[in-house]
Amino acid sequence: SLLQSIEHLHPADAAEKLAQLTPQEVARCVEIIGAERALAVFEFLPFEIQKEALSFLGRETLGRLITLMRPDERADLVEELDESFRERLLSLLIQAERQNLLKLLTYPEDSAGAYMTTDYALLRAHTSVRQALDELRLQAPKKETIYYAYVVDAHRRLIGIVSLRDLIMARPDSLVDDIMYRNVISVHVDQDIEEVAQEMVHYDFLAMPVVDGEGRLVGIITYDDIFDVMTEAATEDMYLLANLDTDDKVTSSIPRSVKLRAPWLLVNLGTALVASYMVSLFSETISRFVVLASLMPLVAGLGGNAGTQSLTVVVRALALGEIKTKGTWKVVLRQAAVGWCNGALCGLVLALITYAWHRNVWLAGIMWMALILNMIVAGTLGALVPIALRKLKLDPALGSSIFVTAATDTGGYFFLLGLATLFLQEIVLHG
Amino acid sequence: SLLQSIEHLHPADAAEKLAQLTPQEVARCVEIIGAERALAVFEFLPFEIQKEALSFLGRETLGRLITLMRPDERADLVEELDESFRERLLSLLIQAERQNLLKLLTYPEDSAGAYMTTDYALLRAHTSVRQALDELRLQAPKKETIYYAYVVDAHRRLIGIVSLRDLIMARPDSLVDDIMYRNVISVHVDQDIEEVAQEMVHYDFLAMPVVDGEGRLVGIITYDDIFDVMTEAATEDMYLLANLDTDDKVTSSIPRSVKLRAPWLLVNLGTALVASYMVSLFSETISRFVVLASLMPLVAGLGGNAGTQSLTVVVRALALGEIKTKGTWKVVLRQAAVGWCNGALCGLVLALITYAWHRNVWLAGIMWMALILNMIVAGTLGALVPIALRKLKLDPALGSSIFVTAATDTGGYFFLLGLATLFLQEIVLHG
Ligand SMILES: [Mg+2]
Ligand SMILES: [Mg+2]
Ligand SMILES: [Mg+2]
Ligand SMILES: [Mg+2]
Ligand SMILES: [Mg+2]
Ligand SMILES: [Mg+2]
Ligand SMILES: [Mg+2]
Ligand SMILES: [Mg+2]
Ligand SMILES: [Mg+2]
Ligand SMILES: [Mg+2]
Ligand SMILES: [Mg+2]
Ligand SMILES: [Mg+2]
Ligand SMILES: [Mg+2]
Repeated sequence: SLLQSIEHLHPADAAEKLAQLTPQEVARCVEIIGAERALAVFEFLPFEIQKEALSFLGRETLGRLITLMRPDERADLVEELDESFRERLLSLLIQAERQNLLKLLTYPEDSAGAYMTTDYALLRAHTSVRQALDELRLQAPKKETIYYAYVVDAHRRLIGIVSLRDLIMARPDSLVDDIMYRNVISVHVDQDIEEVAQEMVHYDFLAMPVVDGEGRLVGIITYDDIFDVMTEAATEDMYLLANLDTDDKVTSSIPRSVKLRAPWLLVNLGTALVASYMVSLFSETISRFVVLASLMPLVAGLGGNAGTQSLTVVVRALALGEIKTKGTWKVVLRQAAVGWCNGALCGLVLALITYAWHRNVWLAGIMWMALILNMIVAGTLGALVPIALRKLKLDPALGSSIFVTAATDTGGYFFLLGLATLFLQEIVLHG
Repeated sequence: SLLQSIEHLHPADAAEKLAQLTPQEVARCVEIIGAERALAVFEFLPFEIQKEALSFLGRETLGRLITLMRPDERADLVEELDESFRERLLSLLIQAERQNLLKLLTYPEDSAGAYMTTDYALLRAHTSVRQALDELRLQAPKKETIYYAYVVDAHRRLIGIVSLRDLIMARPDSLVDDIMYRNVISVHVDQDIEEVAQEMVHYDFLAMPVVDGEGRLVGIITYDDIFDVMTEAATEDMYLLANLDTDDKVTSSIPRSVKLRAPWLLVNLGTALVASYMVSLFSETISRFVVLASLMPLVAGLGGNAGTQSLTVVVRALALGEIKTKGTWKVVLRQAAVGWCNGALCGLVLALITYAWHRNVWLAGIMWMALILNMIVAGTLGALVPIALRKLKLDPALGSSIFVTAATDTGGYFFLLGLATLFLQEIVLHG
């Protein structure tokens, strides 16, 4: 009855229903309706459920299912399996598929190769349009998409692309060679997947061809996988800016979230201790003029906010490929200048409020000066830290917010309390 | 020569080159190569350049270009124009196109209607496959995509979808009715575009049909526009979490960034004053035990970090549609519990460090207790604030980080200094 109720659903929705069953039950459903019909739904299931359900499948269904799966989905799944089960699965595949799978497993996690499928439509240049359409008709059932067809030479080098739309519109007796697009845009199999996503967004491509070092076509990456890449890349950046592990979800168990967040909080505790130590160096000043204790969070906090602003603008621009290697200094200087200006502006407001509150003109002046200095630090480091991390081939968002806010906290306390120590007599006299 | 050099480029790349010219020069290029050939490149230009170049075009080229543009791109452009120029453009369109354009302009900014195109491929159910392919061939030049064709009844109600792939694979004499997919998934024209993006990602759709209240097909939204929606939605969320205006870019001029950031910083100044005032209420306590001034940033800072963690997890989950209306209380309680546990855990470390530093067991205990309390506030508000904003139909990320960190700063100072005041004798005695 469940099977009947999901029969008319889109595979994505059917998979959502199935995901509520136990892996055994999922496996039984697959056995009942057969690998062929279960395939579309199975590919939409979360990896964990796919993985566990596999072990409850009979040898024959397992073999057919794994053979029918799309190469990229299959590789993603097999990657998750433990060694012994992986071996068993490999033995169920025919030689060619096995080698294809093993090859796909060699590409590093964030590379184009790890996201590409090898089921793309191929054509030869000297085929007529009529013949090409017949060939695509034959290839269609096994290919991820037939809306773009790729034209390769005798060495399998990618020499042209033709869309099904162009084929349909062309005269049937013209050649693929006459209508194909020759200035092919492709990505290298080792290229970072986020860069590939940028290219696909730039060109509005449905699929991007992937080539090896010799320009030979080795796969394509389709728009639906780019949807997922974009979602994950954005989550990763937001999470890193907030010091979170990407496995941390609203649905994670409490112990799991605690475990994933604690290390970041402890790192933060370490950097906060530096700021705390900075304050302790000025105990003498604070005890002589205790108002400083209530004013210092203002300078630190506003600096932190300005630093996060610069950091976020720069991290996002790096993620979208908007910062070229040349001109990074301009970016840093500009953020420093914005910090300086907003320090002057907000610092003036802060100084006026301080004066209204404490009727102390020296104190107000020192607050203004301290905020300007801290905002310059905020803008400079907010831009410099992610750019430096990128230069070091690290993720620009990794730990950068901890570092920047540690600097603006420490800086805020140092500038305010340092200036207050220098001008302590004046402050106390006018207090 | 520029025209020659861009001739072989993909339109997206050609547009990038053209974007470096003045609007007059762009307009001259369009005049030289003609609206028909310039169209593809023109649509890839940034809106500001499109907009300014238009005013330098001759009446005839202008009329042809605006007539040829895709309806969704055209609406986006016309929306940016000032009233008088808009009137002039409208007068250049034929009646049907003008009404279509005026209709598209009525949809609110973030709705499906504002992103859809009206150039979709239509078929009738009682057409044969052979005939359908012929019809698509004829429709192809004017349609955004022919890879999905939509089947409507006599009232233009959407009753089926058929992909070009299925048409190509089907027997030529079968009917569209026999092969079309009937459980059509569609979105309403008023639906939020971010929800539409979620649906397209869920179903891996190339295009999503958009219907009105009566189920009549009014447009489709294609994957390439969803690429842009996803990019913008992620930028917006990151920016709001960092208190930034979405117009703020690394390339913005310094005065512009200053102007866009200053209001947020001033709001932050306002909330920071609350925390500052909280500290000032405890001046007496601080002046009797000045070590508190250096310890209080630790409690406030760690609380802020934990609050940002909960906030980010929840904002992201809301953006991806992972939090259902039922069960929001569970989300809040879970984040509160995670805060409590990490408060206990990190608080223990903090207490040990405090003891090692100041050899004061009461002070260490108070630090522990204060951190636990502040972390519970952090987790609770980090989840509650975005969920409440969503309930109020506001953006869950809007101002939420300012509010949460204001609460954890104020809370951190209150819990530490309040407990210290309560147990001041014990602290001073053991100091
Ligand atoms: Mg990555
Ligand atoms: Mg993979
Ligand atoms: Mg685009
Ligand atoms: Mg795929
Ligand atoms: Mg996929
Ligand atoms: Mg990244
Ligand atoms: Mg929005
Ligand atoms: Mg629009
Ligand atoms: Mg998907
Ligand atoms: Mg469009
Ligand atoms: Mg577009
Ligand atoms: Mg949003
Ligand atoms: Mg802070």
